[in-house]
Amino acid sequence: MTERISVRRAVYEENDRMAESLHGRLAKDGVFTVNILGGPGAGKTTSLKQIIARLPRDTVSVIEGDIASDIDTKALRELGIDAHQIDTGGDCHLNVPMVESILSGMSLKKGGWLFIENIGNLVCPAEFVIGEDIKLVISSTAEGSDKPYKYPSVFQKAAAVILTKMDLAPYVGFDMDYFASGVKSLNPDAPIFPVNARTGEGFDAAVAWLKSLKAKS
Amino acid sequence: MTERISVRRAVYEENDRMAESLHGRLAKDGVFTVNILGGPGAGKTTSLKQIIARLPRDTVSVIEGDIASDIDTKALRELGIDAHQIDTGGDCHLNVPMVESILSGMSLKKGGWLFIENIGNLVCPAEFVIGEDIKLVISSTAEGSDKPYKYPSVFQKAAAVILTKMDLAPYVGFDMDYFASGVKSLNPDAPIFPVNARTGEGFDAAVAWLKSLKAKS
Repeated sequence: MTERISVRRAVYEENDRMAESLHGRLAKDGVFTVNILGGPGAGKTTSLKQIIARLPRDTVSVIEGDIASDIDTKALRELGIDAHQIDTGGDCHLNVPMVESILSGMSLKKGGWLFIENIGNLVCPAEFVIGEDIKLVISSTAEGSDKPYKYPSVFQKAAAVILTKMDLAPYVGFDMDYFASGVKSLNPDAPIFPVNARTGEGFDAAVAWLKSLKAKS
Repeated sequence: MTERISVRRAVYEENDRMAESLHGRLAKDGVFTVNILGGPGAGKTTSLKQIIARLPRDTVSVIEGDIASDIDTKALRELGIDAHQIDTGGDCHLNVPMVESILSGMSLKKGGWLFIENIGNLVCPAEFVIGEDIKLVISSTAEGSDKPYKYPSVFQKAAAVILTKMDLAPYVGFDMDYFASGVKSLNPDAPIFPVNARTGEGFDAAVAWLKSLKAKS
């Protein structure tokens, strides 16, 4: 067990070092990097489309992480978005070498945005920084109000939570107070933005917050 | 890379050996073991309650896997179900030693059922057998119809798919044909059971199928 833990710690430490170096290079070019985390079908890509629709298109690049398929990358490209695919081939999270490798073929917009949509998974991606300025967690009402209690690490590390599928909240018995208390107990400063990613409702506030954070960075 | 792959293969092989041995011991006592897989908030525990409600209560034991919290175990115990908690403390899947360790404190029903609810994650738990007879995948309409394409491994290994939140299907634009084609292309023999885990609709068929499988085992 001790050996296992120390191997794991070494993996994290090596990844952290590489992430810090990558973040330094991105920040030098004024690129603000957002690591998007959430479970399968939480609405990560749909939310990303709504965020990007509120930013100057030519300031945005996207990396889409999946264990298989390029469905989301194709959908983003059809909208004219500069999107690039990482297929991890089974790995449950992105890591720095994967991001470095895809970045080498991209031309980022100086002073712009880089959104990295991580693997649909509330567990592993929480443990690996990949050069980001912030982690943004996407959680859906349909997943239930107990998610912060069951997956604390990802909520603890989030700069903000986008709560999707608000239109379904009455049908699934979503308890906003219980959800918000869970987030607050782990992470008192993270705002929660309730949205409907299909209609765009709620995204103006989320994007205003992102912009203010980028301006301060 | 080669070294990494061979370390990983060794971990899988060692786990497979232990799983086979555990499965042999369970089968000797006539226990039929179901490994329940699904993303966060797919409806794993709610489905499990509906399944158990259709079985003689004193034939059932449950192991609940979580990375944190014992919310589901408490809820099952309140219903008088013999439920036991594994907190992995961050690990993204259950493994055989975790299951062995909790089993040592349980008294299973000979000729009965053991349901093991794995960590809410469509990636890692697919790769680790834990002594089960079958894997049962829980997927919700709210997660979207593209899940088999994005998370092929877990659907490929499923003996059946329980498709939850059918009441939400019209609101989320769920495409049943696309979903079913995805499952079928990976796994032609796995039935899909559309259900509503809140009302119980659809579970009679799923449980009849489970019983027939157990009778043949």
